[in-house]
Amino acid sequence: MKRLLDSDSLRALARGCGVLSAGGGGDVHYCLLQALQASEDYGPVPLVDVDELPDDALIMPCGAIGSPLVSIEKFENGDEGDRLREYLQHLTGRRVAAVMAAEIGGGNGLLPITWAARLGLPLVDADGMGRAFPEVPQVTMHLAGIPASPAVMTDERGNLAMFRTISGPWMERLERAAAVEFGGTASATEFSLTAAQARQATVRNSVSLAIRIGQAIGSAAGSPVAALITELGAFSLINGKISDVERQTIKGFARGSVRIEGLGEDAGRVIRLELQNENLVALEHDRLLACVPDLITVLDSETADAITTERIKYGQRVTVIAFACDPVWRTERGIAVTGPRAFGYDLDYQPVEDLASATA
Amino acid sequence: MKRLLDSDSLRALARGCGVLSAGGGGDVHYCLLQALQASEDYGPVPLVDVDELPDDALIMPCGAIGSPLVSIEKFENGDEGDRLREYLQHLTGRRVAAVMAAEIGGGNGLLPITWAARLGLPLVDADGMGRAFPEVPQVTMHLAGIPASPAVMTDERGNLAMFRTISGPWMERLERAAAVEFGGTASATEFSLTAAQARQATVRNSVSLAIRIGQAIGSAAGSPVAALITELGAFSLINGKISDVERQTIKGFARGSVRIEGLGEDAGRVIRLELQNENLVALEHDRLLACVPDLITVLDSETADAITTERIKYGQRVTVIAFACDPVWRTERGIAVTGPRAFGYDLDYQPVEDLASATA
Repeated sequence: MKRLLDSDSLRALARGCGVLSAGGGGDVHYCLLQALQASEDYGPVPLVDVDELPDDALIMPCGAIGSPLVSIEKFENGDEGDRLREYLQHLTGRRVAAVMAAEIGGGNGLLPITWAARLGLPLVDADGMGRAFPEVPQVTMHLAGIPASPAVMTDERGNLAMFRTISGPWMERLERAAAVEFGGTASATEFSLTAAQARQATVRNSVSLAIRIGQAIGSAAGSPVAALITELGAFSLINGKISDVERQTIKGFARGSVRIEGLGEDAGRVIRLELQNENLVALEHDRLLACVPDLITVLDSETADAITTERIKYGQRVTVIAFACDPVWRTERGIAVTGPRAFGYDLDYQPVEDLASATA
Repeated sequence: MKRLLDSDSLRALARGCGVLSAGGGGDVHYCLLQALQASEDYGPVPLVDVDELPDDALIMPCGAIGSPLVSIEKFENGDEGDRLREYLQHLTGRRVAAVMAAEIGGGNGLLPITWAARLGLPLVDADGMGRAFPEVPQVTMHLAGIPASPAVMTDERGNLAMFRTISGPWMERLERAAAVEFGGTASATEFSLTAAQARQATVRNSVSLAIRIGQAIGSAAGSPVAALITELGAFSLINGKISDVERQTIKGFARGSVRIEGLGEDAGRVIRLELQNENLVALEHDRLLACVPDLITVLDSETADAITTERIKYGQRVTVIAFACDPVWRTERGIAVTGPRAFGYDLDYQPVEDLASATA
């Protein structure tokens, strides 16, 4: 049964993408506006399950790459998806049948909808992360052995870059350098795959999940934060106030740390989040509260709307939650690619539920 | 009449490319060894005039991009030309008929011969500069309105980058960033053109000229430097000794300056060369002796072999010569792209012969 992404679904999706962002993936607000406008102009985008697509249907995973801090002010003009598709088709010699969010988290969960609407293509109900991660090879397709190549990048001016690399890390290096030259962010597709491959190599039904999360927040009878925590099976790390933000755009990433002082029952506590586009680790002094690949998301304490790293400001009243990532990231290979050591931290991954029960 | 580039021609060519390098274009020594080996393995490369090619024959201008300082230690493995051709053909949908040096100066005058030998293609007796310049759009094809796109870059590992840009300066930015990621140098083709275009848009017979220069040095009865100065109609700026070298690899370029103290008749004089891969300006205190786009080349005072910027060392006995560039660079558009102001100097271009007669 064909399901269309109407404006209510898009609004719920935007909230859900925020929660699944772990702080990254870019701003959901402007990406929602883009998706609503494109859906109005070109008609609503059909959401399809990978099971509904023929085995050999080519799926184009796509999104923005770079620093989300930059993308608030320098955003897409909408025709990037057209160039990504054209050159991906040229390089593969195949027709793109559907679009997929490379990462469901943040604005990147919505941006592919704008392009899908303009291209007249369906959106696949899946993504490559089940959240957002900062680096190109940090996708489930990479874990499944699907090559990143060929990749296509473009900017809002009309420039194009295409890459074929010998490894995922080489793709990360070249794409990041191009994103920096493009002004800090760009549009990209890599890890194109068939529907048959996508059945095994993606986080499935993540668009539906994000919509459900958004609806849970929107329809909560009492506290939206409490409703969300129940929906996700999440853990509350702290309820408090942003007391310090250090954030810089370095080599195409937003990097820094955020300090949160507890309020109410958490008064006297202080936790620190360290970030590279996404929130990577949550520490209370030297004690680890949660870490990648589990999700750490900062919520507005009143509305339960997620606050992505580029929107964090002094004084915001927030609740920091953490919850389990997709099981694929908890495998040995998954942890190698996205665990704390992959980001340079000298600590072993520990599941958020173990850390929470040790605290309790 | 088909002319084959035998080993004697290649050796003479290497000396000539050195003289036409203006200090840049990369090391001629290792590029000569590569070209000799490839010619032995695959047979000598035919040198063809653009008039001998059909109007619509596609010419692939190519060479190395990056810092020549790096390329002494990190050089090509020979199969780059194959990838450049394959993807240029894929992007244009046309067959490459001949290879051309993007710049005749330095090792870049020889590198395309290695690739031509392995590809079984002829080398065109022309290039895009008549010398060497550091930046991508500083070619006669750019002056003639031929687009840089599509460009293909590759490294010795097998990585590939392809670009289509909205302007030459955008191509420079993206290629330079990729060259830096590749470790400071890479192989590239851009500004592909037809033989009909090449008749108007290149510096013609520059391969023959370089061979003739090399032969003039090699067969000189007396001083090779004197013979070369006569052959070129060049001006001797100083005869002396390298007394200081400042040189750094910055953002994919070799940048710095070289100080030369006069010896013999020039005792007491001091001149300074400023460089960005190539020697850009020659100054005696504040007085300009020569500047881009005219050529400033440092020669070994004994052998007249050119010393490219990455080989300059304290104590070398050198003669610095300067001579006129191809007339195309002395046009208003040529000076805008390659004159001193294009490199950030607050001074107007003055032809080397005017500067020399003012001094005399």
